[in-house]
Amino acid sequence: MANPSLLILPGDGIGPEVMAQVRRVIDWFGANRDLAFDVSEDLVGGAAYDKHGTPLHDDTMARAQEVDAVLLGAVGGPKYDDLDFSVKPERGLLRLRKEMDLFSNLRPAQCFDALADFSSLKKDVVAGLDIMIVRELTSGVYFGEPRGIHKEGNERVGINTQRYTESEIARVARSAFELARKRSNKVCSMEKANVMESGILWRQVVQEIHDAEYPDVELSHMYADNGAMQLVRAPKQFDVIVTDNLFGDVLSDCAAMLTGSLGMLPSASLGLPMANGRPKALYEPVHGSAPDITGQGKANPIACILSFAMALRYSFDEGENADLLEGAVQKVLADGVRTADLMGPEGGSPVSTTEMGDAILAAL
Amino acid sequence: MANPSLLILPGDGIGPEVMAQVRRVIDWFGANRDLAFDVSEDLVGGAAYDKHGTPLHDDTMARAQEVDAVLLGAVGGPKYDDLDFSVKPERGLLRLRKEMDLFSNLRPAQCFDALADFSSLKKDVVAGLDIMIVRELTSGVYFGEPRGIHKEGNERVGINTQRYTESEIARVARSAFELARKRSNKVCSMEKANVMESGILWRQVVQEIHDAEYPDVELSHMYADNGAMQLVRAPKQFDVIVTDNLFGDVLSDCAAMLTGSLGMLPSASLGLPMANGRPKALYEPVHGSAPDITGQGKANPIACILSFAMALRYSFDEGENADLLEGAVQKVLADGVRTADLMGPEGGSPVSTTEMGDAILAAL
Ligand SMILES: CC(C)[C@H](C(=O)O)[C@@H](O)C(=O)O
Ligand SMILES: CC(C)[C@H](C(=O)O)[C@@H](O)C(=O)O
Repeated sequence: MANPSLLILPGDGIGPEVMAQVRRVIDWFGANRDLAFDVSEDLVGGAAYDKHGTPLHDDTMARAQEVDAVLLGAVGGPKYDDLDFSVKPERGLLRLRKEMDLFSNLRPAQCFDALADFSSLKKDVVAGLDIMIVRELTSGVYFGEPRGIHKEGNERVGINTQRYTESEIARVARSAFELARKRSNKVCSMEKANVMESGILWRQVVQEIHDAEYPDVELSHMYADNGAMQLVRAPKQFDVIVTDNLFGDVLSDCAAMLTGSLGMLPSASLGLPMANGRPKALYEPVHGSAPDITGQGKANPIACILSFAMALRYSFDEGENADLLEGAVQKVLADGVRTADLMGPEGGSPVSTTEMGDAILAAL
Repeated sequence: MANPSLLILPGDGIGPEVMAQVRRVIDWFGANRDLAFDVSEDLVGGAAYDKHGTPLHDDTMARAQEVDAVLLGAVGGPKYDDLDFSVKPERGLLRLRKEMDLFSNLRPAQCFDALADFSSLKKDVVAGLDIMIVRELTSGVYFGEPRGIHKEGNERVGINTQRYTESEIARVARSAFELARKRSNKVCSMEKANVMESGILWRQVVQEIHDAEYPDVELSHMYADNGAMQLVRAPKQFDVIVTDNLFGDVLSDCAAMLTGSLGMLPSASLGLPMANGRPKALYEPVHGSAPDITGQGKANPIACILSFAMALRYSFDEGENADLLEGAVQKVLADGVRTADLMGPEGGSPVSTTEMGDAILAAL
């Protein structure tokens, strides 16, 4: 049987630096765990724009549709700030999400014991935190039509459309309920049903799917503004949170920051099963391209490495190997190995991106 | 000259309980500071629905347009959860905001020294925090058309429209810049210009107003998801934040929770100047109707009392009297007077709503 295929899109900023460490990890699994991948690499975001004048070339898009999983680094940077909307680095990422139909975005917010002190929150509020935000990723105001800026009389008017169909809500709700069953069996759905009709439909459909298919899962509903409050006040009350594309964007970033270590957080974006039974999938760290530290060897590769661990788990059903990799990361942290972003006020000397890779390989 | 007029709308849940204390404070200013108001009272929210079958009677709406300022308690409660969207308690509040054209919603997130320990954030992250969120309140996805739930084939589809005109953005931007000039002269504007055209227009117009009219104010732009992160990570980096209706809803609640004491936070919603030069204005606490503690005499009246202090400052140009009232609240807190929501783990015995009112009157 052919090896499973991976498309690597390092992207912009620190993307290539952290991805270099992921490649070493991938190679390690090939050499030591009989788990070889066919790896190809291509451009996305500003890097693709610089070469092709578009943030995602059609050939790359086609390749992403064929492979078993895509690993992405990060997109964007100040260099591209003034580009037209249609060719901004972000459009490359959004096109991948939309055309691969990656409707279920899993964003774990997990607080690593060794790092609980890094949070701006009190230790007892976040120690042991382990929540999973399931964000709808292919619809809502990100993609709704009509959209754009036009003139009405003398004035410019900016328009976007929040639009959700029943089936779009149903499928992401199912993926949240499935996940909850493997965790603490609790889902909280967030919207603004008190002011938005799309939120009313969201709440109704989530409730219907629950009642018909997942009555065993504990379901609650919360307004998204209260959700933001509760995440700050007492995040451990949550297990799985399911929400739409825009609320998910803001709330998952809020949740990520609770952990205090953004450089640690991976994400998975999953779509429908392909012919081989694997879901369409893209994995990427939650952190961005971090232009301020690009090229300095300071970036923390762990979020990107843990994204590969998610790929092992969700695309390749290699739970044991995912555990192995996650365990190696835990061990390295427990041993006190720290990139610059993980240095506390007490100081110490940080390791470089490559040295963090070295340490994780050694722990494997 | 006639006394300035106040319309009091206690609303639902703990609204009437906390408003009773505000009335005592209003009376105190009449008796002791030569500052008498013509006060009338009426229904809003569920209370209005129970009596009139609508969450805001037309007569109440008309009265709100005439008075110098409206003070509102809170709306909503589980009793009304299953009402049709069009008569939900929230619609009463939204109608007031829209028809009074209260486009500038000021939400201070201030951490009171005596209460810094209540925050779920570390004390050094929030001690001394004093930021002002200026939220656009009459447009955006809250009011945009088309909206609703309809059928397409076999499916229900939920739609809302995010819509901003240039002048809507310009006027709230101006109000943020004006405020910044009286504070630390720094504005951060938040949107999702990387994915939404309405966000691009928002960013452009805020920048244009800045360059043309407020070049002395320091202006930055931030994506709203990063904004949520930065609020959690290091909120003291901000002075004034200006953002749209929906992001403002979520981000201001997030910011409010940073302070750890929601029962303390007032808000002002301001519109255009009336014939007498005063702005159309509505003042309300940030907290909700708190059905869980309604009728138990436990509610903290301070947020509502401080909302009246904002009325003194922004509607009646009574800065000194506002200072006096805010000072009385500070003193009471410093003296250790605490309602139940302000009790730490070390315990102690909480005062009732009325006793907190007594203490504040005594401090005045
Ligand atoms: C880069 C940007 C388009 C993206 C988003 O808004 O979805 C990012 O913030 C994210 O959360 O993955
Ligand atoms: C009650 C509700 C309609 C309201 C809103 O969403 O604006 C509330 O959350 C607020 O922030 O004042």
